[in-house]
This record gives sequence, C-alpha cells and structure tokens, in this order.
Amino acid sequence: MGDIMTERGLLIVLSGPSGVGKGTVRQAIFENEDNNFEYSISMTTRNKRAGEVDATDYFFRTRAEFETLIENGGLLEYAEYVGNYYGTPLSYVEETLASGKDVFLEIEVQGALQVREKMPEGVFIFLTPPDLVELKSRIVGRGTDEMSVIEERMKKAVEEIEMMRLYDYAVVNDEVENAVRNIKQIIESEHLKVSRVLHRYKKMIEEL
Amino acid sequence: MGDIMTERGLLIVLSGPSGVGKGTVRQAIFENEDNNFEYSISMTTRNKRAGEVDATDYFFRTRAEFETLIENGGLLEYAEYVGNYYGTPLSYVEETLASGKDVFLEIEVQGALQVREKMPEGVFIFLTPPDLVELKSRIVGRGTDEMSVIEERMKKAVEEIEMMRLYDYAVVNDEVENAVRNIKQIIESEHLKVSRVLHRYKKMIEEL
Repeated sequence: MGDIMTERGLLIVLSGPSGVGKGTVRQAIFENEDNNFEYSISMTTRNKRAGEVDATDYFFRTRAEFETLIENGGLLEYAEYVGNYYGTPLSYVEETLASGKDVFLEIEVQGALQVREKMPEGVFIFLTPPDLVELKSRIVGRGTDEMSVIEERMKKAVEEIEMMRLYDYAVVNDEVENAVRNIKQIIESEHLKVSRVLHRYKKMIEEL
Repeated sequence: MGDIMTERGLLIVLSGPSGVGKGTVRQAIFENEDNNFEYSISMTTRNKRAGEVDATDYFFRTRAEFETLIENGGLLEYAEYVGNYYGTPLSYVEETLASGKDVFLEIEVQGALQVREKMPEGVFIFLTPPDLVELKSRIVGRGTDEMSVIEERMKKAVEEIEMMRLYDYAVVNDEVENAVRNIKQIIESEHLKVSRVLHRYKKMIEEL
C-alpha cells in the first residue's frame, strides 16, 4: 500500500461442472474472514424466498429491469434457468476492482466463458471432481432420477469438463479444505505476478 | 499419482539483484524437508575449499572439462567470475525433471536469462528488495568499500532490477519467512495450471 496509484483488484472466477460442489467450496472460502476479496452478489428475476434479503442474497429485479440491463451491456454474464434470469452486474464488479479489492465470482461454466471474453485478465479457476466415476456417483446420488436424465447430466458434465482448457487453473475438489487452501494459494500467487507489480519498481527506480 | 505417464517436474529459477539475499532464502527453503524438489548442484572450476565435498557442494571440474561441456552444450547456464567458471549441468536438470521431480535453481540474473532462453517453460521468480534505498544500504553495509565501487554496484543492481520484466513472479524479501512462504505458494499454484493437468482429464474422459 502507500502507493499513490491504487492497484486494481483481481477478478477471480470459480467455476466447474454441475455437481462438483462449487457452492460448498465458495461458502467455505467466505466462512473464514481473513479474505481480502468481495463476493459478487448475483442479480435475479426469481421471486424472493422467505428470509432472503435484497442486495445480500441477490439483487432482486423485475424481468423488465433485467432486460434493460442486458440491452445496455450492464451484465458481466447472465443466463436463463427455468424461466428466470440470473446474472452478474458489471457495475459492482468494476467499482470493486477499481477500489483495489479482489472480486470473487462463483458461476456456471457458460457464464464463466462470457466473463472470459469481457475480462480476459481475470483468474479462472476450474473446480474438478477427483475422477469422473466419482462425479457420476454424485450425479446419480442426487435422487431417484431416471437413467435418461442421469445420462443427460453426465453428457453435460463431460462437455463442461472439456471446457477446462479455457481456464487458468484446475483445483481438485477431493476435500473441501484442500480445495479452499489451493484456491487461496492461487490468489496470493497471482498477486505476485511481475505484470502486476512492475510499475511499482519502475517508480522506485525513477525516484532513486 | 498412479498415472501411467510420469508428469514432468517443474523447473523453478530463483534469481534477483546482487545483495538481495537469494542464498539466505534458498537455504531457508531447503532447511525444511517437506519439499518435493531437488536443489541443482552447480559445477565450478574453482579449487575445493576445506570441508567441501564433490557432488554435494559443487561438481568440481578442471577448466578443460568445463570448456568441453560448454562446447557440447552440456550447461544450462554458465558464467566466469574472478577467473573461474560456474554453471548448471544440463544432464542433472533434465534427468530430474524427467523423473517427475521439480528442480530448484538459485542463480545470478545473467544465468537466469540463459535458462529462460533454453527452458522458457520454467517458473522464473525474481527476489526483490523491499525498496531500493534498503538495497543501497545493504550494498553499502557490506564493508568499507570506496564510493566508486558502491556506485558501480548500485548501477548494476538497478540494471538487474530492470530485468524483472523478464520473470514470471516478483517476491519481496522483506522477511525471509515471508519470501519462503510466497515462493512455496507459487510452486504449488504452478502445479495447478490447467496446461499441466489437462492431459490427465482427457485420459479420464476417454476411459469413461
């Protein structure tokens, strides 16, 4: 710190195939309060459930409001699930990064690809199952779904895993605490990239 | 593990300007035995000192032997200081990486640039002083050298710091334990790069 220029925060994107446990890992990261990054609150058009608070759980918006944001490029990424929109408001992400804080997104693979196009400088972390047999058992274990549903989900999971190549890091979700530790290490290391700190040293040399 | 294919180890290069404390940091890293990487022993033509052991402290070689290695491309990097050669034998580095172990080099900036050309896939870490005023005081504090000598060293240090841009990471040597922790985090994160693990997942998908 102490610099005249505030260093821009890092955008951290955690994603991975359906059923891999992204939400659990994200919750574990934010349980510990030693973080120096902000969780990006999503925006949705779905109805508020009992106990949910606007601007804490989600930014709750009408369909018309959401579609206006889409038209004006106000969303970093969005998707429609079961008739409702879900997305990440760009303004919050931009303001937080500009203030020097890191922003943490936990989103679906399709959303992550949209973010990659708009903010390629982000740190993209792919959460993976220890092995695909295990992933299959998690998908099957979810309930009493029909085989055709399960097979469809497996097909989607394999397609999503193949998207790993578009990410920077792959973290195995064997144990939640291992995944959390690895993600934190990645974030700390990314802050040490020469491309991030070089300007500081140039300034010191000029002042010598 | 358990893979049929052994994953190639990482080449880790620690360097930085003269007087920054590279040797102290490297020693601290290797004091702790939880490392999964091998320190690359240098080769030299200087005389063995009392207590030094060949193939432990250095590989001691004659000038003729060393020059033959240079001619045959057997050195990853080398330099001449005060009439003696110092260098890194390529065969040891290659064999260790191929066996799946990481190799750790602690070398001068000029040597690191030679390594960058031959093994650009290595992880290049630049150890920096907390600030240049502090570096100056370390250089001055070394002894009772004349001002012209000190100024020459400072000029060299500034030139070396400007080489930071050719590295991947910059680690500040404010406290040795901080530097060690950061270097270890970088190494662990580098092992999580998608480019390193993608082939494993491709194999899993094929086998499903």
